[in-house]
Amino acid sequence: MFNAKEETKKIIEFIKKYFVDNKLKGAVVGISGGKDSAVVTALMTKALGKENVIGVTMPCESKENDRKDAQLVAKKYDIELINVDLTDTYYTFKKQFSNITKETTNADINIKPRLRMSTLYYVASIFSNIKKGTYIVAGTSNRSEAYVGYFTKGGDSVCDIKPLINLTVSEVIKIGEVLEVPEKVLYKAPSDGLSNKTDEEKLGVSYKDIEKYLNNEKLSQDTKERIEKLHKNSLHKFIIPEYKRCA
Amino acid sequence: MFNAKEETKKIIEFIKKYFVDNKLKGAVVGISGGKDSAVVTALMTKALGKENVIGVTMPCESKENDRKDAQLVAKKYDIELINVDLTDTYYTFKKQFSNITKETTNADINIKPRLRMSTLYYVASIFSNIKKGTYIVAGTSNRSEAYVGYFTKGGDSVCDIKPLINLTVSEVIKIGEVLEVPEKVLYKAPSDGLSNKTDEEKLGVSYKDIEKYLNNEKLSQDTKERIEKLHKNSLHKFIIPEYKRCA
Repeated sequence: MFNAKEETKKIIEFIKKYFVDNKLKGAVVGISGGKDSAVVTALMTKALGKENVIGVTMPCESKENDRKDAQLVAKKYDIELINVDLTDTYYTFKKQFSNITKETTNADINIKPRLRMSTLYYVASIFSNIKKGTYIVAGTSNRSEAYVGYFTKGGDSVCDIKPLINLTVSEVIKIGEVLEVPEKVLYKAPSDGLSNKTDEEKLGVSYKDIEKYLNNEKLSQDTKERIEKLHKNSLHKFIIPEYKRCA
Repeated sequence: MFNAKEETKKIIEFIKKYFVDNKLKGAVVGISGGKDSAVVTALMTKALGKENVIGVTMPCESKENDRKDAQLVAKKYDIELINVDLTDTYYTFKKQFSNITKETTNADINIKPRLRMSTLYYVASIFSNIKKGTYIVAGTSNRSEAYVGYFTKGGDSVCDIKPLINLTVSEVIKIGEVLEVPEKVLYKAPSDGLSNKTDEEKLGVSYKDIEKYLNNEKLSQDTKERIEKLHKNSLHKFIIPEYKRCA
């Protein structure tokens, strides 16, 4: 049985211990307006104190409503929120490729998470200088997303601590309830904010079914195969082939 | 005993097999003008055919000579070489932070490898579209660099295949000799092209000594401790702490 109160307490202890053991000062969280980053913001604030957590919004052709929800999260936990607009950077980057091809629709989608990762590390580095102590980047991926490879290699998967990576979507929501994450954010349909689709529409499978799969509960053969295919097709994001010396 | 000819043959077989097994079409290599990317370019060309390898130069306030050396490598192995100038993107990116701080010297150094990683994946994605088959990003890190953490998390360490990761600097050079990498490139003092220092000046230890360490050869206590400290201080780049559920 998942005891959300107990797990919440333990995650906060885990974060505290890692920061103390490694003499770290603070954390940077990219706040998207979705539940995962809200829960991570809450956990970091409880573990480190609100003065040691920096939230970052990184709009890039994004929905204005998502930024408002991010502001709601920052306000709720009373942390500093920095806005870094990546739109100009994104278009400047893309312009360099205009002589190679015009067709970049599929290629485009992963640039933003990579620019966001670069931004979070840059903010962490700047604040490490200003505050005279090391700031690290907090990851927000959860177990359900990770299992089906729903993340960008070199993007949102690059981070320094993973508080939610072994918790399914429904477990993250329960943790969020304990931490009183604003309901509007906690129960919003998950979306990457990159396409105009929800995660579940893109994946072709529901988080409820992924969770059933992870818990060995009964599922239709079709759904099972769909999840296994997503997992298999994303293994290359986890396992990078290395040549081993023959002698 | 390291048999460079035999290892070269085996690396080429390893690359071929991975591409065939995973139905991949081609590889993208960021060519810096240094030995590692030159050796990887040679290996990929032998394994996949020159028509399936794309070289990319990504100057960003870089030395013009490095680009010339990259052109020499591309010419030698007769592959297509694309130039993506990242200077404008870099300055556009930095401009977004001008209201936070002026002091960004330390923070700046890691942006370029992250923009380069984003570029290589973008090129891979564009060519996958154009050529109707999957292109992946070839990594160029070697064992000596990796051991002392001499790479950027979320930057040059993000890739899809690692042909050199278990070979020391001198072994990479021997492979390069077999593959007839231009001497000017192969024997150049390694430098990241980011600072004005060579790698060895930055690390405070020579690759020769790192290699002795890795081979359990005799070293002064000071040098040994320096290498162990570099290794220990970079472990956070390899091991990301994850909260494990308590029940």
